[in-house]
Amino acid sequence: MASRVAIVGAGPCGLAQMHAFEQARAEGADVPDIVCFEKQSDWGGLWNYTWRTGLDEWGEPVHGSMYRFLWSNGPKECLEFADYAFDEHFGQPIPSFPPREVLYDYITGRAKKSNVREFIEFNTAVRWISYSDETFSVTVENLADRSTRTEEFDYVIVATGHFSVPHMPSYPGFEQFPGRIMHSHDFRDSREFDGKDLLVLGSSYSAEDIALQTRKYGAKSVTISYRTNPMGFPWPDGIDEVPKLSHLDGDVAHFIDGTTRRVDAIVLCTGYQHSLGFVAEDLRLRTNNVLYPDNLYKGVFWLDNPKMIYLGMQDQYYTFTMFDGQAWYARDYILGRVTLPSRDEMAVDIAEWRAKLDACETPIQEIDFQADYIADLCRDVDYPEFDLDLTREHFKTWEHHKEESIIGYRDRSFSSPCTGTVAPAHHTPWWQELDDSMATFLGNK
Amino acid sequence: MASRVAIVGAGPCGLAQMHAFEQARAEGADVPDIVCFEKQSDWGGLWNYTWRTGLDEWGEPVHGSMYRFLWSNGPKECLEFADYAFDEHFGQPIPSFPPREVLYDYITGRAKKSNVREFIEFNTAVRWISYSDETFSVTVENLADRSTRTEEFDYVIVATGHFSVPHMPSYPGFEQFPGRIMHSHDFRDSREFDGKDLLVLGSSYSAEDIALQTRKYGAKSVTISYRTNPMGFPWPDGIDEVPKLSHLDGDVAHFIDGTTRRVDAIVLCTGYQHSLGFVAEDLRLRTNNVLYPDNLYKGVFWLDNPKMIYLGMQDQYYTFTMFDGQAWYARDYILGRVTLPSRDEMAVDIAEWRAKLDACETPIQEIDFQADYIADLCRDVDYPEFDLDLTREHFKTWEHHKEESIIGYRDRSFSSPCTGTVAPAHHTPWWQELDDSMATFLGNK
Repeated sequence: MASRVAIVGAGPCGLAQMHAFEQARAEGADVPDIVCFEKQSDWGGLWNYTWRTGLDEWGEPVHGSMYRFLWSNGPKECLEFADYAFDEHFGQPIPSFPPREVLYDYITGRAKKSNVREFIEFNTAVRWISYSDETFSVTVENLADRSTRTEEFDYVIVATGHFSVPHMPSYPGFEQFPGRIMHSHDFRDSREFDGKDLLVLGSSYSAEDIALQTRKYGAKSVTISYRTNPMGFPWPDGIDEVPKLSHLDGDVAHFIDGTTRRVDAIVLCTGYQHSLGFVAEDLRLRTNNVLYPDNLYKGVFWLDNPKMIYLGMQDQYYTFTMFDGQAWYARDYILGRVTLPSRDEMAVDIAEWRAKLDACETPIQEIDFQADYIADLCRDVDYPEFDLDLTREHFKTWEHHKEESIIGYRDRSFSSPCTGTVAPAHHTPWWQELDDSMATFLGNK
Repeated sequence: MASRVAIVGAGPCGLAQMHAFEQARAEGADVPDIVCFEKQSDWGGLWNYTWRTGLDEWGEPVHGSMYRFLWSNGPKECLEFADYAFDEHFGQPIPSFPPREVLYDYITGRAKKSNVREFIEFNTAVRWISYSDETFSVTVENLADRSTRTEEFDYVIVATGHFSVPHMPSYPGFEQFPGRIMHSHDFRDSREFDGKDLLVLGSSYSAEDIALQTRKYGAKSVTISYRTNPMGFPWPDGIDEVPKLSHLDGDVAHFIDGTTRRVDAIVLCTGYQHSLGFVAEDLRLRTNNVLYPDNLYKGVFWLDNPKMIYLGMQDQYYTFTMFDGQAWYARDYILGRVTLPSRDEMAVDIAEWRAKLDACETPIQEIDFQADYIADLCRDVDYPEFDLDLTREHFKTWEHHKEESIIGYRDRSFSSPCTGTVAPAHHTPWWQELDDSMATFLGNK
């Protein structure tokens, strides 16, 4: 009997995994039976925008954390599929920082080409995964008819992502604050804050981007409160950074340096939890958001049972490129093309990577760390060649661009590590561009 | 071995159930072992106010649907515990329409008196309930340490409530609407809408109350869109009702009668789902929000397995009073004090009640229907006597008061069916009273 593989989630990781199998199948490989369970009604994971917040139409937690007017915050050249270049998908060179809809089109474009939709059961939530007698039992609920069933699999690949379940601290005075308090997970449209004084808590990508977005679309002021260190970018007029929030008194925010600000609304950009409560404890990854979670050999294979595979559970500079490397490696393990060393050797390898990570002190070193990890993955598999070293340089250049101009870095152009194509400049500077539609972006409107 | 009872939820229903057992224990009964699993960190269910929306600190769906400045929308005399009168708890007569904090204090006051907190495991979510070999298996997750375990029980009492998981329809244009769209489940503070033009969808209690609340606290206008029939109350200036929403075009709402309104935000008061996905299908109640759900004998015992008990799953005029009647009945069944008839007889009884319900056409008839149901429960158990017929009349009077003045009905006074105490008038008319604190309400401030 053919072996069976369960994939949990049809976002970028799940789609990469199915695509990797289809690529092998097209070359004649004997591919196992694949079932992908997706709780949303369509594919694309986070990139599948929804207006919904909180709970979805089935009463399930909303997966999507993306908002209107979200543009890529890294150069697209650093996430390009080596076997499906941007040039191939769009038939024309496009600028380096596309809006969400454009990247959604690109990701799902490759999935359509490799015809993986047939493997996906939509509106299906995975409730429990356990392992015994050499077999995984996967209990799923069909959200439409509310039926529950358990199926058996030889391998499980968890591709749920980890930017969906908010980490949401409380502060004194939240219970009495007379305005909206939301996590960035529930942020949807900047224009909600037109004319408002906004408080943003956090100092990572969400805080940076939501501060810029809301100001760009009309917020009167944006105060960013950092817990440890400010981001320190050259903020445009109307945005500034202050120390940690101490408490609220009515609508007045008090910070630990004694300063105060009156604010209308609060957005907590305080990160996400790895939430894998549907996995039995002996198989469950528990980690904070780091570049090399513990107990995952090659960043993907669960140390105590490598048939349990996790994709994309790292913190990320690299995204789709890294997911492809992981998906190819997972595929080749399942197909018997690569073998894994002993448990002890795997544990040593994990410890070595984590020691290297501990030595990283700067974003530049972290970029190299993650690029090294991708190189390590790609060495053993047939993922098409691309210029990984060029992307290292791109990321470092991008970091410098951000320090030079936080509102201008998205106007820069990069060259493709796959095709060499140099991206054209966008027709409108990002800070002035209020229309994020694909038609306008591609200049077809 | 003593039999074991699992109670799911420590809100009004779960607390009533534990209290009922303690009342029997105090009189010498041999009471089974009781464990109550509560996913929140404190008791009180919906009445335990939280500023959180969407997902809670553990990444679980937020249970609470209550908002700041929520006042009881029915006379407290119609929900009074017959064995713990308002006079006993507060030591003074109080007005008929208390704010949330006051009712929370009352509910938890009885629970403290009967000392039921020791039975509750907080921060514990029930993941799965199934039945085989005469035993229930209940799988729970400790949200703090994320450990999962399965325990066995002889009886399960589901007391989760059914006003926590929103029913949230979509309309054309929601994806492009440039403001907040939320369900009433996520509504928290009316002052968020100060100076705004608000659209409220719905025609039941939430729509009525949120329209009044937001206008009272400064919304510029509130447009209520009904699906079938308007509520038809004499709305104050600034609130009106329009037909069903057709679609949105930017921030302009179009209704099926061709009229339009520009709006800043939308609150969907579109009701809740009975969401019991943690119960195995052969035990799972599936119902919409009706006064007599199918398959529940006496409104509580699961027809196919009466050791599976559901409290408070009805639509409600009566609340705490009804939960007490149910809890007493469930207790006496478990204690062997009452016996249930054959499955066929129970099915006939359920069908008879549902036929009576089908014949109800007006709220007045529905009030009598639910009062008759409570009378039927109380006939067989030792719940203390109270003047149920008086509460019927109170509810009918209350309906008339609402028709006379939707902003004034909360200023009326009723008499207690337990003590005869006539409620004093509140010191400030509800429409002018902006402070909902217990101290101000009780006049101690």
